[in-house]
Amino acid sequence: MPLSDVTSLPGVTVSPDIATRRYVFNHTMIRVRDLAVSLDFYTRVLGFTPVYKQDFPAAAFTIVYLVLVGDRSVIPDDDADRLRWVLAQPGVLELTHNHGTETLEATPYHNGNSEPRGFGHLCVSVPDVTVACARFEAMGVPFQKRLTDGTMKHIAFIRDPDNYWIELLQPTPLYEPPKEEATKAGEDTKEAP
Amino acid sequence: MPLSDVTSLPGVTVSPDIATRRYVFNHTMIRVRDLAVSLDFYTRVLGFTPVYKQDFPAAAFTIVYLVLVGDRSVIPDDDADRLRWVLAQPGVLELTHNHGTETLEATPYHNGNSEPRGFGHLCVSVPDVTVACARFEAMGVPFQKRLTDGTMKHIAFIRDPDNYWIELLQPTPLYEPPKEEATKAGEDTKEAP
Repeated sequence: MPLSDVTSLPGVTVSPDIATRRYVFNHTMIRVRDLAVSLDFYTRVLGFTPVYKQDFPAAAFTIVYLVLVGDRSVIPDDDADRLRWVLAQPGVLELTHNHGTETLEATPYHNGNSEPRGFGHLCVSVPDVTVACARFEAMGVPFQKRLTDGTMKHIAFIRDPDNYWIELLQPTPLYEPPKEEATKAGEDTKEAP
Repeated sequence: MPLSDVTSLPGVTVSPDIATRRYVFNHTMIRVRDLAVSLDFYTRVLGFTPVYKQDFPAAAFTIVYLVLVGDRSVIPDDDADRLRWVLAQPGVLELTHNHGTETLEATPYHNGNSEPRGFGHLCVSVPDVTVACARFEAMGVPFQKRLTDGTMKHIAFIRDPDNYWIELLQPTPLYEPPKEEATKAGEDTKEAP
């Protein structure tokens, strides 16, 4: 459907309130068992850069904001400038570490995909999902769904150290199947999420 | 701490793998009870624009991708172009609606902030958090934490129709307290998240 149909869905306002014009969907926060383990995963495996860390000693937790930028030179070096910068960016990840959970053998956190459900996943878009998945396989990253699993052959899911699901996809089609095959393969056979 | 200290935290790779250079933290997915109600909230209250809707009739669910852009003219009108565009953006919100949940009286979904915990919140950054909160109050949006609640006077939390928490903050300081007062007010007295 064209954009005009999407922007006139039931429940959708005709046009955004001018008051929201400079609002930014800044970040998503997840709790992690072991900050060093999660930082390793998000930086080494997915390429995020940590940009701001804040400790709250009295309440015994630490937060780290991370961004996924190809060029770190866009990130201000000065601490105050960098905080202002990161809070104005879209697509920031906030990891929260409650001190002491790193001593637990397994993560105390729930990924939202079994009861009680709610949050589903994060998604990282990559230029070539086949190449990216081969890299993750070589690195020993656990998969929730490989490209070859199920009926949706163009997306994969890996799991982070706390078992949160991370969807992988590429913006361009993986391949363009003939119409008949596309119908037969039927994305609508995907299991309810 | 300067950026160089943040990028040398335990667990952090010295520099991102070149393979990740064009990776984008594309979206966060949450499940919603009633799509029309959630679309109303995210478009009218927060200013998001729905950009792509996909139905999966056999598995009985629908997804909608939304972005928070001040100027809708950046969004391609053509359906295929728009899908490619949205999958390459950072800061996209994906709402998943499992058909039929809208008939339930209360949301079947868990927001991650009581046991079992995990996902914490989404955050929308606004130019002026005091002005934004006054607008949400006037609209009757439920608050999880007002600016005046607790020790962290510069952030607020509202709740979406499924009770997911949405943090509100502004990139610039709310005010600059004198050093002594800042220490006394101590953000580190915040409760563990």
